[in-house]
Amino acid sequence: MDLKKIENPRFLKDLSIQELNDLAADIRTFLIETVSKTGGHLSSNLGVVELTIALHYCFDTPRDKVFFDVGHQCYVHKILTGRASQMSSIRQFGGIAGFQKRIESEYDCFEAGHSSTSLPFALGMAVSRDLDGDDYEIVPVIGDGSLSSGLSLEALNQIGYQKKNMIIVFNDNNMSISKNVGVFAENISRIRISKGYNKLKDTIKDLLKRGKNGESLINSIHNAKEKIKEPFINSSFFGEFGFYYIGPVDGHNIKDLIDAFDIAKKKDMPVVVHCLTKKGKGYKYAEEDTLGKWHGIGSFDIKTGKPLSATPDNEVSYSKLVAQCVEKEMAENADIVAITPAMMYGSSLNHLFSKYPDRCFDVGISEDLAIDFACGMALNNKKPFVSVYSSFLQRAYDQLNHDVARMKLPVLVGIDRCSLVGQDGETHHGVFDVSFLRSLPNIILCEGKDAKEIKSLIHQGFDSQLPFFIRYPRGNVIKDESDELLKFNVGEWEYLVNRDDPDAYIISYGNDLLMMQKIIEENNFNYSLINARYLKPIDEKMLIEIGNKQKPIFVYTVDMIKGGLGDDILELYASNDIKADVRILGIPDQFVTHGSLSELKQMLSLDLNTLFEMIEKSI
Amino acid sequence: MDLKKIENPRFLKDLSIQELNDLAADIRTFLIETVSKTGGHLSSNLGVVELTIALHYCFDTPRDKVFFDVGHQCYVHKILTGRASQMSSIRQFGGIAGFQKRIESEYDCFEAGHSSTSLPFALGMAVSRDLDGDDYEIVPVIGDGSLSSGLSLEALNQIGYQKKNMIIVFNDNNMSISKNVGVFAENISRIRISKGYNKLKDTIKDLLKRGKNGESLINSIHNAKEKIKEPFINSSFFGEFGFYYIGPVDGHNIKDLIDAFDIAKKKDMPVVVHCLTKKGKGYKYAEEDTLGKWHGIGSFDIKTGKPLSATPDNEVSYSKLVAQCVEKEMAENADIVAITPAMMYGSSLNHLFSKYPDRCFDVGISEDLAIDFACGMALNNKKPFVSVYSSFLQRAYDQLNHDVARMKLPVLVGIDRCSLVGQDGETHHGVFDVSFLRSLPNIILCEGKDAKEIKSLIHQGFDSQLPFFIRYPRGNVIKDESDELLKFNVGEWEYLVNRDDPDAYIISYGNDLLMMQKIIEENNFNYSLINARYLKPIDEKMLIEIGNKQKPIFVYTVDMIKGGLGDDILELYASNDIKADVRILGIPDQFVTHGSLSELKQMLSLDLNTLFEMIEKSI
Repeated sequence: MDLKKIENPRFLKDLSIQELNDLAADIRTFLIETVSKTGGHLSSNLGVVELTIALHYCFDTPRDKVFFDVGHQCYVHKILTGRASQMSSIRQFGGIAGFQKRIESEYDCFEAGHSSTSLPFALGMAVSRDLDGDDYEIVPVIGDGSLSSGLSLEALNQIGYQKKNMIIVFNDNNMSISKNVGVFAENISRIRISKGYNKLKDTIKDLLKRGKNGESLINSIHNAKEKIKEPFINSSFFGEFGFYYIGPVDGHNIKDLIDAFDIAKKKDMPVVVHCLTKKGKGYKYAEEDTLGKWHGIGSFDIKTGKPLSATPDNEVSYSKLVAQCVEKEMAENADIVAITPAMMYGSSLNHLFSKYPDRCFDVGISEDLAIDFACGMALNNKKPFVSVYSSFLQRAYDQLNHDVARMKLPVLVGIDRCSLVGQDGETHHGVFDVSFLRSLPNIILCEGKDAKEIKSLIHQGFDSQLPFFIRYPRGNVIKDESDELLKFNVGEWEYLVNRDDPDAYIISYGNDLLMMQKIIEENNFNYSLINARYLKPIDEKMLIEIGNKQKPIFVYTVDMIKGGLGDDILELYASNDIKADVRILGIPDQFVTHGSLSELKQMLSLDLNTLFEMIEKSI
Repeated sequence: MDLKKIENPRFLKDLSIQELNDLAADIRTFLIETVSKTGGHLSSNLGVVELTIALHYCFDTPRDKVFFDVGHQCYVHKILTGRASQMSSIRQFGGIAGFQKRIESEYDCFEAGHSSTSLPFALGMAVSRDLDGDDYEIVPVIGDGSLSSGLSLEALNQIGYQKKNMIIVFNDNNMSISKNVGVFAENISRIRISKGYNKLKDTIKDLLKRGKNGESLINSIHNAKEKIKEPFINSSFFGEFGFYYIGPVDGHNIKDLIDAFDIAKKKDMPVVVHCLTKKGKGYKYAEEDTLGKWHGIGSFDIKTGKPLSATPDNEVSYSKLVAQCVEKEMAENADIVAITPAMMYGSSLNHLFSKYPDRCFDVGISEDLAIDFACGMALNNKKPFVSVYSSFLQRAYDQLNHDVARMKLPVLVGIDRCSLVGQDGETHHGVFDVSFLRSLPNIILCEGKDAKEIKSLIHQGFDSQLPFFIRYPRGNVIKDESDELLKFNVGEWEYLVNRDDPDAYIISYGNDLLMMQKIIEENNFNYSLINARYLKPIDEKMLIEIGNKQKPIFVYTVDMIKGGLGDDILELYASNDIKADVRILGIPDQFVTHGSLSELKQMLSLDLNTLFEMIEKSI
């Protein structure tokens, strides 16, 4: 069918199972075609095609609240709720978002981007509903990776305790973003293996035969409870939490899913419907992926599965560069250990992990655990490296403060995906870490301008007796083939362009510096350019020197202005009674939408053209 | 015995059970006497007297790593490791800390203050130990409240998965700080009820009879495994996590504890020893407490249990004031709901919770859940109030950023115990929240100077369509008996002293303002004093006005300088090209130790005498 003609999901109720299956096939083709052009989250969406259809078929959305944990698997939901024609703009500047957004549709009753918030929200919704004496269904859809994070477990603990009526759709694809880890995952695997699809199918068929209508169906379930305990009711795992368990259900069999949801709707207690799905279902390359390569992708050739824009030979991704540096350091120092919270592939740690399996640890989606686990090792004289995306590091703020910084533990944190990240948008931009880290005593925070400087900083980080944080952005950097390391002290900045009597100073950090340097040199601008590679401590000596020159000082960052480097410079001048003319350019007090880096920077007047125009005008 | 003569716990090994019991009695008397004078954590320490003795008897500390989650229950440990003579200085300026501190003793191998970090640390220590080929024991002691928080559950998940050898001593007193909540708590209760002390005792006796020595004891356990499954091995709860379960053990029976630990030491896998203890054991008033009144206390009369310093009649604690305001608002607006993460008593919410049991929720030690639960309710048109201690709010940073601020959800957060808290020291000072909140878009952040202003702000907070944060400190405030509310707009500051042509401006917020006002007025100082009751948004109009007056502006806060109000003012002036003379006084870049507020302020040169001397000198 023409998916672009779908206005809302009500039409589903009139379709036969065969027609629903046909629709699934159409959606799958559409998804592959669309994402091959736009990039985005493919495999998780291919995994939930039938599931999403069955949900909108069984539940009365938007009255019933159906929503998706994290939300990168909401593309099918967007298609079924009237947004197919906008799918070509997904994740692009001005286009629809890659996650649920309340502003886009009344069918998006929830928003996220980080994992494991769906169950706490569901609990809040359920309590509100019951206080209002209302009776709509609350149906969070959550994957196995998200389910085993602490926030989800805390929520399960409360939902079971408060006995709130809701249907948790457990989308079990046996992957977080890469392979799952932990005892929970093992327990779930055990359920998965011990209880086949077919047994459930037979049980449902059996029940349907016996029951005359919905009510008696449920009664007969109660009566038959003893007999059908295996596999139908209660895995000990969910039973411990006080949930009524239904499953496992074949998550690609629409008929089975509908049957399971219909049974779940009749229960007045917390229910878990355990659905087995396959990430990437229906697209060979994505199905075969065990590493998470197809989790979030760029545009690709459908036939070959090859990315359309390959990394040039002389470039390497920042993540990979850092992983290579860490690997080199690990070869030389047996005390170095590495930890990732489920970002093995995203942070390019695969090679590292296969080379040093005993010294590398994936703790699942648990950033707080990752940091405190590292602290325990640091206390016992290991040198832990923890790689975390900037926006997810927010989840470990207290551990960074109370444990790492307060105890001065020499943990090396790699802050991946710092500053603007582009298409993943407001939940993923890594623009807050400087603001929340800068006020932590005892820490070192830095960012390198190029591969050689990053290497040198990482080397220094492993030598450091203090907590050491190094930021690096999404994207690629020119390779540095030499083994040479730069020598500089902690807190020491450098001039990239040093004019004798400059008209202005520009202070910045990170990968915009080289382009700035080029522009200044090519245009022979009379500006001095300073690489503030340490965000903490800052180079007070250099700053005081230039502060006294009575020339405008531009502080350019692609992070939040509030709490950022600019504040630190202003503080220094205030406490030294230097009346310098400091102008801070950065992200103003707002969340930033999705789009390409250049579009976003332009929107924020943070593109380099605007910067240099502004400087020229003001001097 | 004379506890002050104890140098280290090695002497314990030579004592008989009777002598160990006598020692326990001596320690208990000493604890009650000491804490009745110093204040501190009493009931949790009375609960672990025998447990701590048995731990130091069985394990070879400091080689074996025995440590306490949170750490407020480490007083007995401090006494046994040579610090009895310093106990009279505990929690006082210059004295020993109320928590474990590595700097105090080689027996303190861990530090905390916030809950649930012990298991992640234990995992890190165990991995390090195994990498080093070492074989010491790792023995975290953790309470039931801490165990059910997300961070602990994530750690259990990993410890079971990695099958790391350690002995988790589960100190089950059936309380968090007040009553426990959640399905886990219910499950644990079920174990507690279904399996008595005596059964275990009999089982152990039985085993000891059969076994000839240690090794065969264990073999006989293995052989007898089938027979003694109940109650000895495996509760389904810990079994799910892959732990070998021993318990429940009477946590006040030293002999039983020693037997249980001896068995645990022989296992080469993760073991849980489930010990049942009674908070407050041996001191009537503390034993009878179910609310948490005796968790952390001031000095008291041993005979009567009455506090030595009662709240004066005309004063009320800030927490209680806020709870009363919320209660009043709840009476008028049925949509208001209240949430606490296990701080029912600390935040004085008892009355509120008994009056509105259906609209009040204690989610246990889970600050992240508390905030996202509130978000779910706010999405469904409720007006949630969440009360969290400032230093614990750090645990919900990502939820405040990604959920509350990004979605502009009208959650009202009461930030209790803000700024310096005194004796609890560096893990408990609430001095970071301004720094980590100020960079969040869309939020309102405020603090009132007195009861009337706090009431008015809370009323405004419930009316707000934006996320609203109100801070209030530890301690008492003069009551305000009137029903009148002040009227002011969000972001509107006020002059408390408004001189025509002042020599200086002082900008501050919170409860120091009234004393400052008094000093200025009594001394007839020619300074204007401004109440910056909103930390976000700030009063730009007023600031620009005074910024242009070319008079020194002193920004005085008892929070971190970095990221604080001063930075915001500097930013405003920089972006408006105002060259004002701003001097920021606040907490410098360091963690602050324990002591009374006045001692700490003096140490930091933040006492008002120093402030006014400094101002006088500089103008």
